[in-house]
Amino acid sequence: MELAEHLAEFTRRDWQTVDVPDEPVRFALVGLGWWAREQVVPALAASDYCEVGAVVSGSSSKAERVRERTEAERALDYEAYHDGEGTDAYDAVYVATPNATHLDFAATAADHGKAVLCEKPMEATVERAERLVERCDAAGVQLMVGYRMHVEPAARRMRELVRDGFLGDPALVEGAMCQDVFATVSPDPDQWRLDPDLAGGSALVDLGVYPLNTARFVLDADPTHAQGTTASPDEAFAGVDEHVSFEVAFDDGVAAACVASQYAQRRDHLTVTGTEGRATLKPAFFGEAQLTVERDDAEAAFSVEPVDEVRAEFDYFADCLLDGRDPGPDGEHALVDVRTTTAIYESADAGERVAVTS
Amino acid sequence: MELAEHLAEFTRRDWQTVDVPDEPVRFALVGLGWWAREQVVPALAASDYCEVGAVVSGSSSKAERVRERTEAERALDYEAYHDGEGTDAYDAVYVATPNATHLDFAATAADHGKAVLCEKPMEATVERAERLVERCDAAGVQLMVGYRMHVEPAARRMRELVRDGFLGDPALVEGAMCQDVFATVSPDPDQWRLDPDLAGGSALVDLGVYPLNTARFVLDADPTHAQGTTASPDEAFAGVDEHVSFEVAFDDGVAAACVASQYAQRRDHLTVTGTEGRATLKPAFFGEAQLTVERDDAEAAFSVEPVDEVRAEFDYFADCLLDGRDPGPDGEHALVDVRTTTAIYESADAGERVAVTS
Repeated sequence: MELAEHLAEFTRRDWQTVDVPDEPVRFALVGLGWWAREQVVPALAASDYCEVGAVVSGSSSKAERVRERTEAERALDYEAYHDGEGTDAYDAVYVATPNATHLDFAATAADHGKAVLCEKPMEATVERAERLVERCDAAGVQLMVGYRMHVEPAARRMRELVRDGFLGDPALVEGAMCQDVFATVSPDPDQWRLDPDLAGGSALVDLGVYPLNTARFVLDADPTHAQGTTASPDEAFAGVDEHVSFEVAFDDGVAAACVASQYAQRRDHLTVTGTEGRATLKPAFFGEAQLTVERDDAEAAFSVEPVDEVRAEFDYFADCLLDGRDPGPDGEHALVDVRTTTAIYESADAGERVAVTS
Repeated sequence: MELAEHLAEFTRRDWQTVDVPDEPVRFALVGLGWWAREQVVPALAASDYCEVGAVVSGSSSKAERVRERTEAERALDYEAYHDGEGTDAYDAVYVATPNATHLDFAATAADHGKAVLCEKPMEATVERAERLVERCDAAGVQLMVGYRMHVEPAARRMRELVRDGFLGDPALVEGAMCQDVFATVSPDPDQWRLDPDLAGGSALVDLGVYPLNTARFVLDADPTHAQGTTASPDEAFAGVDEHVSFEVAFDDGVAAACVASQYAQRRDHLTVTGTEGRATLKPAFFGEAQLTVERDDAEAAFSVEPVDEVRAEFDYFADCLLDGRDPGPDGEHALVDVRTTTAIYESADAGERVAVTS
């Protein structure tokens, strides 16, 4: 395989199948927190495939403020959403509420026959995540989970290099995602990301899941066993993991060692070392992924204009809906992450390696 | 603390106490393999504090060849060394034989009243490592283990930055050391580094011990628990670990996630992420350490001329002997690494986190 071939059209939308539609896919945005307002709304404003049809919040006034900004047709509170008001205004539902409420909002979407794009992690427990998948399956609606790295060109090119043997046999993965959540997301010590009931965990499920899931994606492999260690020295993180280190063994024999933190100097990378070479995403997960490849003593760093991963994620999902094919990563794929992070927490408590079973 | 203060005299020998002696410390080099011949002999040729007094090998002809090159006073085979021939020709013994034989050669040195500089890992099992320490203690000879990163200026400056709070509270450590042992050390598939009886392990004890021990050094902390996963997909590594990933929990609450490989694209780094900053050694362990520090959005990469770590290690040891003080890392320090790597292997077999006990 030729490296140049992989990289000639680095940022190409190799998943795109349909032309710009006359009628964009209209989304109901459910949960208008930091991520939806700061990342998703601008991405959809720039999109030719998607638009905001409805905005849904626990707060009617917040919904109305965002409706004005987005020119959405409807602003709904949660009760109105669950009651099925305004379903004519949207074709699909984007769920970005606290993790432990994803099931409820996705189930309502399924009841209304709407396709679901659900933020990661899919839910706060394996049991609720499984029910979420079942509800969408039973209703026959498409379900995708928002792992935006799957449409990140640098990650897609890395996956191709691994698949085509550029690294030889992959042997070891390293990954990290660390941030100061108070600086990046919100200064509020009571934000839901630090609430064990609403978030189901913190550093691991909010951040560590990026290197975990992206490793699965680039290796095209799934975890068999996992183990980890958590620490929460600061008061604000009582009940959730502030820092986590974890190891995952994959079904192709590769092992990953990763760290994540909600309160540390920012860091993000994913590094796959093989018998003959290495591929590194760094930066990786904060929306500016860049790829570096090495073999023997040669190193090439590809400097490409970052794409808007959120826009690409929504456009890909819309492309699948318009084309009538199933989007991925789907619910079954995302369940593996929920089972793996649950295994890591269990391991941290029990001091044992835990099998990741389906 | 001022960063400039830490770095103004980056490569200073902050451990040096004595002037260049009229009579350098004379070493017996025991074990004339790749490392001793290619790294140690040139380092001692350049040293003002040390010289080669005797060379000791299982092969008389190899010993004689190296004696000619080094102008050492004596060339000895192992029998002659154990019999105490030529002890007038050296003041101290450097042991660089296969790991599982360090005890025997160090014990003989102790019997002859010679100080011991023993290569890492100290021995192949905890029991033999403990006996090595006991023999040196009982004979009243000084024992140091060859963790050359302790005299590496970049690692020493990193330790100062951590100690002085530049990173805030250290939270997570990442580390890696990967090489192609056939390209770096020897193409021989039967080399002792791949022999379970002689080496007591491979990727972990030969390479992984670098990020492990250097993390201990820069954090000034010791492991409490360890876990790991090993893999040996290639035939040449039957019986030893070709690849390893491992996690270590330290007594200050920090966790480390590391990888090491004897057969992979070369890689080496040690990264400590704290609540307020980060310090990175990269390159780290192959003799060319460089330090990068980050805080908030600022990053400083210090480009300094690498020192000869092996020469510094011998000079430091000689300085201690000439000054009459005890060198470090000593046997008790190195025992912790042997206990930790043993715990990681036990964890890999048992699938459990293993306590590191003294």
